[in-house]
Amino acid sequence: FASKLPNAKTTIFTTVGNLARKHNAVDLSQGFPNFEVDEKLKSLVTDAMQNGHNQYAAMQGYYGLREIISQKIEKLHNRVYNPETEIMVTVGATQAIFTAITAFVNKGDEVIVLKPAYDCYEPAITLNGGIPIYVQLDADGYQVNWEIFKSKISERTRMVIINTPHNPSGRVFSKEDMLQLQEILRPTNCIVLSDEVYEHIIFDGNEHQSASRFKDLAQRSFVCASFGKTFHVTGWKMGYCAAPAELMQEFRKTHQFAVFCVDHPVQRAMAAYLKNEENYLSLPSFYQEKRDLFLEGLKDSRFKFKPSEGTYFQLLDYTEITKENDEDFAKRLIVDYKLASIPISSFNDDHRQDGVLRFCFAKKNETLEQALKILKSL
Amino acid sequence: FASKLPNAKTTIFTTVGNLARKHNAVDLSQGFPNFEVDEKLKSLVTDAMQNGHNQYAAMQGYYGLREIISQKIEKLHNRVYNPETEIMVTVGATQAIFTAITAFVNKGDEVIVLKPAYDCYEPAITLNGGIPIYVQLDADGYQVNWEIFKSKISERTRMVIINTPHNPSGRVFSKEDMLQLQEILRPTNCIVLSDEVYEHIIFDGNEHQSASRFKDLAQRSFVCASFGKTFHVTGWKMGYCAAPAELMQEFRKTHQFAVFCVDHPVQRAMAAYLKNEENYLSLPSFYQEKRDLFLEGLKDSRFKFKPSEGTYFQLLDYTEITKENDEDFAKRLIVDYKLASIPISSFNDDHRQDGVLRFCFAKKNETLEQALKILKSL
Ligand SMILES: CSCCC(=O)C(=O)O
Ligand SMILES: CSCCC(=O)C(=O)O
Repeated sequence: FASKLPNAKTTIFTTVGNLARKHNAVDLSQGFPNFEVDEKLKSLVTDAMQNGHNQYAAMQGYYGLREIISQKIEKLHNRVYNPETEIMVTVGATQAIFTAITAFVNKGDEVIVLKPAYDCYEPAITLNGGIPIYVQLDADGYQVNWEIFKSKISERTRMVIINTPHNPSGRVFSKEDMLQLQEILRPTNCIVLSDEVYEHIIFDGNEHQSASRFKDLAQRSFVCASFGKTFHVTGWKMGYCAAPAELMQEFRKTHQFAVFCVDHPVQRAMAAYLKNEENYLSLPSFYQEKRDLFLEGLKDSRFKFKPSEGTYFQLLDYTEITKENDEDFAKRLIVDYKLASIPISSFNDDHRQDGVLRFCFAKKNETLEQALKILKSL
Repeated sequence: FASKLPNAKTTIFTTVGNLARKHNAVDLSQGFPNFEVDEKLKSLVTDAMQNGHNQYAAMQGYYGLREIISQKIEKLHNRVYNPETEIMVTVGATQAIFTAITAFVNKGDEVIVLKPAYDCYEPAITLNGGIPIYVQLDADGYQVNWEIFKSKISERTRMVIINTPHNPSGRVFSKEDMLQLQEILRPTNCIVLSDEVYEHIIFDGNEHQSASRFKDLAQRSFVCASFGKTFHVTGWKMGYCAAPAELMQEFRKTHQFAVFCVDHPVQRAMAAYLKNEENYLSLPSFYQEKRDLFLEGLKDSRFKFKPSEGTYFQLLDYTEITKENDEDFAKRLIVDYKLASIPISSFNDDHRQDGVLRFCFAKKNETLEQALKILKSL
């Protein structure tokens, strides 16, 4: 059989996670929390099962959930999405991303991807016969050079994928970035896939500049979000996306035959839990404390860093410690020092080396302390 | 935008379900139970959340679940699948089917589909540039004519989709059918997608002839199954598939970027619940009673039928009552008589009319009695 994804390997998150477990390492690799979930949220799922919501939900998602998602977006970003036609509940943001790409990318279409990039974009593009066109973010600050970005756009560009707050860099797009993007795309037909799964995890008083805030950008955008990231339940596999009705219509056609619908009791729980805004508005201070604990501990270490602006990831530059490439160093950190992280090269299609590792700080403070002890010893 | 699925409409199940709700009809249309779920199963989900299984499960599925699935298949069908490499847990059988088709069907590939057919095969084939080649089952008994089937196989045939017990007809493939299929495919490279979501719902002492029972067939088959159908929780969106490692390797590549993994607490619950074989071995008698209740009530009606051999669907031939086409009659049944069913033409690509409607009997006995009252009045 000729593989449709000849280059796809087991994702770095699985590989590193397995190695970390094998060596019983402190695990700051894959992006998920190791602290407990809100009892309230769990009991809402139990309630939903008890209340008999155990059969198929509506294909687009439970209406009550779509409604409150719409209200949230309107409140935060001042854009109204019609819950009937412009919001879909998905099996995590991953399925939203995969489905949007599948619904729109055709053979020979080009898709602009900023890199370093989370690893699920490229295979979805390739499976659909599309061609990823990479725009490298500068390792010094991970800014987009919009001149270069613009030069990559052509008549073949079908889609542009952005991600803010950005994984793995922790960079947050500014309003100026989004306006530039909007201007550059104005004369084109490009669709934007805006991966905003860390929308609520933003530091130092910065504001999340959702694609939905910018009228002309929003017209062409799928905005993808994640309850797993926002409510500390990555294993519940639920997210959503929002887009104008005419784009969403195509998304729905694929969605309804790819998964049909999403876990019903969890949707009921999310709808109820979203009613209390504090459940997501508290995230910046909650995670900023963790980021600061982590960075404070590294002040006198040999690691160099710029503080993460958003997401629950922090990059650390290790070039004062070793000249090894990051895969080797990440591996040695697990095997010899019992600390797991993700080498940044795995977010680059060409395995470009920036001398940087990514650490997830969505962990109990005691886990972060254990990690700091190891990092400071290096 | 040129649609990749120009012909896809909202699925018949959503359309009819909405109409049924609007007219407050007794609903025997979409295939899901309207009775309560086992308290034990619900409490296993609650336990899993309480025990902290709220973050990403392994990409292939929780290992304990894959292990017990493997044991179940070995016990029932005498075939060993390696839980590490040959079993994947999926977002319902729908996602398993979509992913298998996506992983293997290329532009121009032909895929044999028996019809009438459940409506998710065709769009997945089309999205991947494949060409569905239909083999019509005879309306009188819905048998496969294997001569005709064989004549449709060519060098371009990449995949064959079968479905037993068969939705919508309720027919169960015989051992002889499966051996014929095995022989016909022997000289080919075709992959088989065997949709066996109703594997445990089989009547009159018949045995489910899983593709996994037949050595040479199993070598080329994806066997897809559904916990939603088996444990009365279609809204929990969980299924699995089994296939030889070399096929599964390609499936995994797509799966890991399409959804990454599946709801973790539900997987834990399913693993525990599967330990008690009675939970699925009791299904034949449970549903046979419902089928018999339904058919007994129709004895003196003007509907003609052959008893369903498997699935929780019963076809009724209404041609003595009206010459209307089945879409019109199904609609009139909802609007004027407050009873919802699915017109069989919606399972046929050419909307072929057999004068038949499909009724789901996975309902409380009182619901079936209400339906019978209406049907007998016709
Ligand atoms: C689906 S595994 C990856 C989780 C994540 O978002 C990350 O670690 O970057
Ligand atoms: C996903 S909706 C359809 C449920 C079903 O299997 C059927 O009614 O045939």
